[in-house]
Amino acid sequence: MTVPTTSIATLDEIRAVVAEFPAADPDAAGRAAAREATLTKPAGSLGRLEAITAWLASWQGRHPPRIDRPRVAVFAGNHGVAARGVSAFPSSVTAQMVQNFLAGGAAINQLCKAADAELRVYEMGLDRPTADFTIEPAMSEAGCAKAIAYGMMAVEPGLDLLCLGEMGIANTTSASALACALFGGSAADWTGPGTGVAGSALQRKTEVVAAGISLHRTAARDSFDILRRLGGQELAAICGAVMAARLARTPVLLDGFACTAAAAVLFAADRGAIDHCMVAHVSAEPGHRRLLHAIGKHALFDFGMRLGEASGAALAIPVLKAAVACHSGMATFAEAGVSGKVE
Amino acid sequence: MTVPTTSIATLDEIRAVVAEFPAADPDAAGRAAAREATLTKPAGSLGRLEAITAWLASWQGRHPPRIDRPRVAVFAGNHGVAARGVSAFPSSVTAQMVQNFLAGGAAINQLCKAADAELRVYEMGLDRPTADFTIEPAMSEAGCAKAIAYGMMAVEPGLDLLCLGEMGIANTTSASALACALFGGSAADWTGPGTGVAGSALQRKTEVVAAGISLHRTAARDSFDILRRLGGQELAAICGAVMAARLARTPVLLDGFACTAAAAVLFAADRGAIDHCMVAHVSAEPGHRRLLHAIGKHALFDFGMRLGEASGAALAIPVLKAAVACHSGMATFAEAGVSGKVE
Repeated sequence: MTVPTTSIATLDEIRAVVAEFPAADPDAAGRAAAREATLTKPAGSLGRLEAITAWLASWQGRHPPRIDRPRVAVFAGNHGVAARGVSAFPSSVTAQMVQNFLAGGAAINQLCKAADAELRVYEMGLDRPTADFTIEPAMSEAGCAKAIAYGMMAVEPGLDLLCLGEMGIANTTSASALACALFGGSAADWTGPGTGVAGSALQRKTEVVAAGISLHRTAARDSFDILRRLGGQELAAICGAVMAARLARTPVLLDGFACTAAAAVLFAADRGAIDHCMVAHVSAEPGHRRLLHAIGKHALFDFGMRLGEASGAALAIPVLKAAVACHSGMATFAEAGVSGKVE
Repeated sequence: MTVPTTSIATLDEIRAVVAEFPAADPDAAGRAAAREATLTKPAGSLGRLEAITAWLASWQGRHPPRIDRPRVAVFAGNHGVAARGVSAFPSSVTAQMVQNFLAGGAAINQLCKAADAELRVYEMGLDRPTADFTIEPAMSEAGCAKAIAYGMMAVEPGLDLLCLGEMGIANTTSASALACALFGGSAADWTGPGTGVAGSALQRKTEVVAAGISLHRTAARDSFDILRRLGGQELAAICGAVMAARLARTPVLLDGFACTAAAAVLFAADRGAIDHCMVAHVSAEPGHRRLLHAIGKHALFDFGMRLGEASGAALAIPVLKAAVACHSGMATFAEAGVSGKVE
């Protein structure tokens, strides 16, 4: 299926793409299960690695699955709401960190190198932040659709895994507002320290989220409209990348709170829309655990990480590679001459 | 410190080695913490990866820590108690799986290849199983000391990480008895399906563990005597490898239930004796979670794995490498020209 990203100009066109999402491939999943049962180990003894293999096969639509060409895509955007003093760092850090990504000095550079994964950084008009969502919608309809379509371009044929992440000062504020609008609860339920705010600054951040919810929750007509009103350009782009990956049969590893909130927009639109996504880790940002519960996902790691920039997702690539290596490389009981279970 | 492994012939000599264990290097840990604070990320945002780096530095006794030469050591042994019908597989599978390791067909072969780690397999007289511990001690004093000393040989200068694991039909029975004798509770508290026993077979396995406890718990004079009476050759060897790693300043990744039970013998002798060990994963074998609680360790993964053969430990190597890569490779705020936190 081809995604006509350049022609997408409205949120209705985005909604139409979600409605046509392809399903998993039950045949590839069946072949994975059949081979798994023959390998030299007690049945089920590789636990989650076996589930990973079956999931990769069913969403890549092939058996055996492969992780030969993983890509890490990091989207960077700035937020008008940063002016409200919701972050421990100034907005200028978004662009500075993009330069750090390009120079190879950030955590994600080291993690991509360690995982032998390609890193692509997408800078989204950092000098044109979204509007302050406590005053007006963060984006216009057309602006949001454009950001989603831009994110779709992170996917191309031949990728076999897409790891997604973000950089954007104030984007946990946006993610908290998004999650709260999508799944209910109070602003305090979803708001946390982000890069490290505490005390009165955290109180201010919570009030900013509450103000956004108050202004937009009732007015928003669906989850994409919530994204437009409370989200950010990099979050809309992640949403688009998740969509394009579904169409291209590329399984997705989601990173932390902001990244998962962006994908959750699709879940709220259609509960099966992010079945091709696995969440790499539970962030230390407290809203993430609540969000994972809301979307029914069980993360791979719980390492207390809260950096963003796809760091948790990239860290999980070797686990997926290891799962594939076991499934493809192990001998069967028959090949190895190993006795089976005593019945 | 040199370990005179070839001259060790008694458990008292083993006890003397434990009494002289070196401590962690606070200077290396301090240098790790100092550098960590300068790297381009919010303080603490790499969570457990930062803790891993500090732990590696303090036990390698150098900064920066390195994972250039990781070794995976798998010890295989047979158990007299297997004759009691406690496993879903016949004892012949131990030797068959060793052949599978040597031929490259097992899970651990694929995981070592994926992690770029050296694999060594140590076969411990598979045609001479330990005695049935429901009748007599599994090993003589000299036999147990010899197995411990044998395990010490898995460590040599220049290794910077040692992953330990085992293969031995019936060794979860032995591990359950060990853990129960070391930490109290009932046989049922510590006994689980192992390779896959259930129903009346699991009941029989629990009774076998209870019989071993009943015969040896009161008679045993300390944890090494418990190891001799209820353990196995491969478990004694793992205990020795953990000891030698401490002396050689090689941090250790422990695998699942049987492997951790072997290391727990040292913990019971001296609560600081396995501070240089991290547990890679929580096994699906239910006794493992209880055992981790008893020794105060928090595993990296919870993937429902229960294969043994160091599979969980090998799976964790890339995580440790990633932690080191971030710590060593990231730019500092000053180098990257990134603004620090707003105070």
